[in-house]
Amino acid sequence: MNSKRVGNQTVVFANPPVILSSYSVVGPKEGQGPLGKTFGKVWEDGLNGEKSWEVAESKMLQEAMQGAMDQASVQKEQIDFMMAGDLLNQIISSNFAARQMALPFIGLYGACSTMALSMAVGSMLIDGGFAQNVLVGVSSHHDTAERQYRLPTEQGAQRAMSAQWTVTGAGSVLLSSSGAGPRITSATIGKVIDFAVKDVNNMGAAMAPAVADTILNHCQDMQLKPADYDLIASGDLGAIGLGLACELLKQSGMDTGTSFTDCGVMIYDDSQDSHAGASGCGCSAVVFAGNIMQRIKSGELKKAMLVGSGALHSPTSCLQGESIPGIGHAVVIEG
Amino acid sequence: MNSKRVGNQTVVFANPPVILSSYSVVGPKEGQGPLGKTFGKVWEDGLNGEKSWEVAESKMLQEAMQGAMDQASVQKEQIDFMMAGDLLNQIISSNFAARQMALPFIGLYGACSTMALSMAVGSMLIDGGFAQNVLVGVSSHHDTAERQYRLPTEQGAQRAMSAQWTVTGAGSVLLSSSGAGPRITSATIGKVIDFAVKDVNNMGAAMAPAVADTILNHCQDMQLKPADYDLIASGDLGAIGLGLACELLKQSGMDTGTSFTDCGVMIYDDSQDSHAGASGCGCSAVVFAGNIMQRIKSGELKKAMLVGSGALHSPTSCLQGESIPGIGHAVVIEG
Repeated sequence: MNSKRVGNQTVVFANPPVILSSYSVVGPKEGQGPLGKTFGKVWEDGLNGEKSWEVAESKMLQEAMQGAMDQASVQKEQIDFMMAGDLLNQIISSNFAARQMALPFIGLYGACSTMALSMAVGSMLIDGGFAQNVLVGVSSHHDTAERQYRLPTEQGAQRAMSAQWTVTGAGSVLLSSSGAGPRITSATIGKVIDFAVKDVNNMGAAMAPAVADTILNHCQDMQLKPADYDLIASGDLGAIGLGLACELLKQSGMDTGTSFTDCGVMIYDDSQDSHAGASGCGCSAVVFAGNIMQRIKSGELKKAMLVGSGALHSPTSCLQGESIPGIGHAVVIEG
Repeated sequence: MNSKRVGNQTVVFANPPVILSSYSVVGPKEGQGPLGKTFGKVWEDGLNGEKSWEVAESKMLQEAMQGAMDQASVQKEQIDFMMAGDLLNQIISSNFAARQMALPFIGLYGACSTMALSMAVGSMLIDGGFAQNVLVGVSSHHDTAERQYRLPTEQGAQRAMSAQWTVTGAGSVLLSSSGAGPRITSATIGKVIDFAVKDVNNMGAAMAPAVADTILNHCQDMQLKPADYDLIASGDLGAIGLGLACELLKQSGMDTGTSFTDCGVMIYDDSQDSHAGASGCGCSAVVFAGNIMQRIKSGELKKAMLVGSGALHSPTSCLQGESIPGIGHAVVIEG
């Protein structure tokens, strides 16, 4: 009954689900960044003709999911489950996208870890025999996130140098029980780890311990080391969090070498004034759906690990004096 | 690969997961209601000595999950996944409970449908071979919900007669691949259905079409009829939504007979001034964990269906003029 479980937190797939296709839609800032050419579509502005940023984010998510279906020439009728999540209260971007998609819908919340979480759970549903095709979609939007979590963007408040810039972007992957493409071979579901960081302008620091914990547990469960992976990409710790995660892994005796990077470090360059890097569900979603998938398909990466990292606070919990709990979920993709 | 899929939306379990135990913790109003004696624990007030309702709700969820583990004499180390969700922004009740539980954690959001959704996905993870034991926990709290979704309770605003009262309660079930107890034999994952209801004081009406759709699809997929179930309990439509769901099913040629009721109708009586009944993730969670589980175990109910119903709006989406999308997820439990 329990044969696919390895160690404490990891599952290994008997028939590894295939990533049939991936697609990403991003805003202009992301399009101007170093990964600009890897995205499926770049919007000219964050509204794209919609009446609110919230409506625009939900439409962006739909576009990404439709893009993934189109790439694989898979019709809606062939999808067994849609799995989605985002950062907004009550995950409305996903809910309203699901209304348009009219598919059996499983909503998830893992903050910025949602892409990896959805891919992990979706793979279990496929390998478990419950679905042939699962459509995963995740989004975030700079302006919807700013006004919900921080300050109205119209106010033009100065951002802390440790803050990360929420990506405007939606990424989607279509997972399938058969077909050609990279395969998801294992997944590690993370535990909530809290090192008592309370600074909402330094979420990389809050999430770093959870990412380190998940990488350690994954390697322990699988009896592997970081060098066995061509790439380990967290998403999204930013520059400060990535440094801290490396440091924590080093303290635990693990050398991550040069393979460990972060989607929040990759997506913008220094000229883009994004301070500590990028964050938001959409960040790891579009970096994975674009850059990482292309590198796996080209053969540059034979084995990659995406470690989605989520800060599981809310504005209310922070106002009530709580620290920021973090979580990391890992999925391993082989070309 | 896809042998466990039946019809368009339903999955049937090859080795139906066992509900090893269930436990519920509720507030005083729920304890005074007609189901009062079926709950595991009744708090004397909604704070229970904590400094905020939000902290209290998270503690209540932990108590319920600990209660389910204790009932089954299962230790934390034996749990493979914790699955939880609630109504608060960024599901903080669940996140902070997961911090204390320190278990591999999958966060879900399905509004009031979260109990059924978690049981459905948890059962797939077990039957798929990825877990031996999955701990499911879901909570809501009248006072945290009121101040987030509606008005500060201190204001004492008059409630509409069509409004439902959010239950203060947390319910938990411990699902396992083996052992003695009722079994989850099938599940139907719902689609988002929106009949353009915009009245946030009448969420039963917003959710009724989704519940009707899921019951219809479940019966079609399984080639069964409502009379094949001793109980079909939606959770939570309240009195108005239940009437509308019955009407919609009748229009589709389905007679639900006397077996169809609603957790939001069961939990309070007319003397409790709850208007259209109860709502909140915790409602179906505690009614299922208490009353329904007891009736299944006693043999009164041989086959029951829980149809979790969620209203997938947010205060922001409503202020922006959106209607309220609904969803219904069904799980079938056999004694």
